[in-house]
Amino acid sequence: MATPISFLSDFGLQDEFVGVVKGVLYRISPGSVVIDITHQIPPGGVRAGALALSRAIQYLPPGVVLAVVDPGVGTTRRALAAATEFGLFVGPDNGLLSPAVAMVGGASAVHEITNPDVMIPGPGSTFDGRDVFAPAAGLLASGEAQLSDLGPEVDWSSLVPMLLPLPRVEPPVVLGEAWWVDVFGNVETNIGPEELTLVGLRPGDRVEVRIGASSHSGRWVQAYGDVADGELAIHVDSAGLMALAVGGTRADDELSLNAGMAVVFGSLSSTE
Amino acid sequence: MATPISFLSDFGLQDEFVGVVKGVLYRISPGSVVIDITHQIPPGGVRAGALALSRAIQYLPPGVVLAVVDPGVGTTRRALAAATEFGLFVGPDNGLLSPAVAMVGGASAVHEITNPDVMIPGPGSTFDGRDVFAPAAGLLASGEAQLSDLGPEVDWSSLVPMLLPLPRVEPPVVLGEAWWVDVFGNVETNIGPEELTLVGLRPGDRVEVRIGASSHSGRWVQAYGDVADGELAIHVDSAGLMALAVGGTRADDELSLNAGMAVVFGSLSSTE
Amino acid sequence: MATPISFLSDFGLQDEFVGVVKGVLYRISPGSVVIDITHQIPPGGVRAGALALSRAIQYLPPGVVLAVVDPGVGTTRRALAAATEFGLFVGPDNGLLSPAVAMVGGASAVHEITNPDVMIPGPGSTFDGRDVFAPAAGLLASGEAQLSDLGPEVDWSSLVPMLLPLPRVEPPVVLGEAWWVDVFGNVETNIGPEELTLVGLRPGDRVEVRIGASSHSGRWVQAYGDVADGELAIHVDSAGLMALAVGGTRADDELSLNAGMAVVFGSLSSTE
Repeated sequence: MATPISFLSDFGLQDEFVGVVKGVLYRISPGSVVIDITHQIPPGGVRAGALALSRAIQYLPPGVVLAVVDPGVGTTRRALAAATEFGLFVGPDNGLLSPAVAMVGGASAVHEITNPDVMIPGPGSTFDGRDVFAPAAGLLASGEAQLSDLGPEVDWSSLVPMLLPLPRVEPPVVLGEAWWVDVFGNVETNIGPEELTLVGLRPGDRVEVRIGASSHSGRWVQAYGDVADGELAIHVDSAGLMALAVGGTRADDELSLNAGMAVVFGSLSSTE
Repeated sequence: MATPISFLSDFGLQDEFVGVVKGVLYRISPGSVVIDITHQIPPGGVRAGALALSRAIQYLPPGVVLAVVDPGVGTTRRALAAATEFGLFVGPDNGLLSPAVAMVGGASAVHEITNPDVMIPGPGSTFDGRDVFAPAAGLLASGEAQLSDLGPEVDWSSLVPMLLPLPRVEPPVVLGEAWWVDVFGNVETNIGPEELTLVGLRPGDRVEVRIGASSHSGRWVQAYGDVADGELAIHVDSAGLMALAVGGTRADDELSLNAGMAVVFGSLSSTE
Repeated sequence: MATPISFLSDFGLQDEFVGVVKGVLYRISPGSVVIDITHQIPPGGVRAGALALSRAIQYLPPGVVLAVVDPGVGTTRRALAAATEFGLFVGPDNGLLSPAVAMVGGASAVHEITNPDVMIPGPGSTFDGRDVFAPAAGLLASGEAQLSDLGPEVDWSSLVPMLLPLPRVEPPVVLGEAWWVDVFGNVETNIGPEELTLVGLRPGDRVEVRIGASSHSGRWVQAYGDVADGELAIHVDSAGLMALAVGGTRADDELSLNAGMAVVFGSLSSTE
């Protein structure tokens, strides 16, 4: 089997951008299956792309990862390819790759893509996904190029990091942030079950959830089905983080909660 | 050729859910081509998913069908795999699979997926598409597992059925329901041409279409192009059911008609 | 490797249409990789589809192109298959294929698809993508059919052309049209850099952009990153045409500019 290529971008599916990149990949590495992670990262949403990639990475087949969320296209931001135990990552130097690379154990080598021979000469400088990243990913997948063929090695520590907010445990509460709303309206936070445990909360407990000036009463449950319609569920989601759901409806709408907003979890007194 | 996997869900394409499921499928059965039927079934829309699957099934390649519209994920609803003459169906026991399974001649055996060895141990219990259904579908496609490896056989009659409304012929009218609005705004009903024939209507006839309190005059035509702009066309659609279209515009908007609403067809007097 | 099939349509991704067509293609030519160019051409948008296909074509793998934007489905409009140096094009005779076929050097032969043996007998006459075009594309890709098996040869000059507006150079201005807004809100015009050169403009120059009654001042730059937030950038886009972008936001919103609107470029006096 040829090396598979997992592909994430903010190109959307309305224009022909994704199809064009896949055309380039096929021309270079026709045997590679391309797995679309998602192409509907919000335009320019580097952090959202980095989070989606890090949630997906452990379920993707080892091989090449091509990730393009690249608001700095055409500027001096570097184009990178990184070797890891999982395989090879290709994308812009803007933090997009960092959490996923860290999750698979870090990079053993990182090269900047500078060799014009591995690029497609094209008009304009606005579509490096097509002209720089796709050819590099295709050549790595087909085995026609090694990392060192793409350009000079660069120091991992010189890369643009992705700074992700950590939750703060300040008993009796845990302070965190909503960082993803999924298609069902469920809201993932950056808080794990271990943080809730540190303030004395356990599965089955009632939990106070504060969002801005408003306070909501929920319950730490195992599954969406464990709450009645309209009831607030706090649960460990499929990525292992605490998430908010509301029975029978969208939690983001019910709670007026969007990605980026602060969320505080705390105990509700047992007499409630 | 490896066994193909046809995949339908309500995961949408915004999040990485579909990509993650495809990653799991590829890791287990890398030779299987995955055909996306659609992933934009309305969230939790079991009936809409069942209808889409039943419209598509006869055009899909024999093999494995993975269908996940699963509002009961994490509850006691069963996970199923069914053997048919078409191939193997994998999905939740909520009626989603029933119409398509019936359409290919029914199931010769149904097993509940309970064997933890065929599941991916993951955090949370909210993503059985990834942790239960995808591994089962992949193992069946690759031939590494048989139905009996997944869990105990269950009785087909114990399954949750999908109750679909039948049209009623009450001359001089036929009473039915709109049950699908497509991307072009065309509205499919649950009424077939044979029902219209039973009330004396034939292709070419003028037809009265009643929706709620309003009455519309249309014509039974062969193709969209057979009506003028703004004119109402009643036609046999690509699934063999009577559908409504309006020349040059969207029928759903023109008729204020959504899936689930009642539709009545009848004759218009020949003097009109 | 089997012949790849590149597939463009206005079917959207909400319904099962694309999945059904892919099922038909797989059943006929299971070894063919299918590359989705895009399926979100606006419904019935023949010109938008023709432009997307012509932008994509040079990056797609030689093979079969299946393009279906077909508001005249079911009428007397012809179904066509055309042989070119790039490969084979299959689609309706409404101008959709013309610009891409011209871009790869024109067609050496065009046949009408009329042979019922290469079609799928289906209910209704509203889904030729499934019943006519997909089987033809699949049979051509698998090698089971030649062009001449599909139906009689027709004269290329008899085909419906796609009339695309040309820019007009009327010093000191160039008059053109916005003809594509991409997912990022960037607006491509039908004006190339050579036309701007003819009125004395060069990269780096300030450019006056007139849209309706309003006039905007921009700069001809290389990359999005070369302008400050809120500043108007005129640049050569990835298809080689002059496009408008605004730093940090969507150009279409900032300029109230949609596809089809007139755009005039001219010099700004050097004293500005």
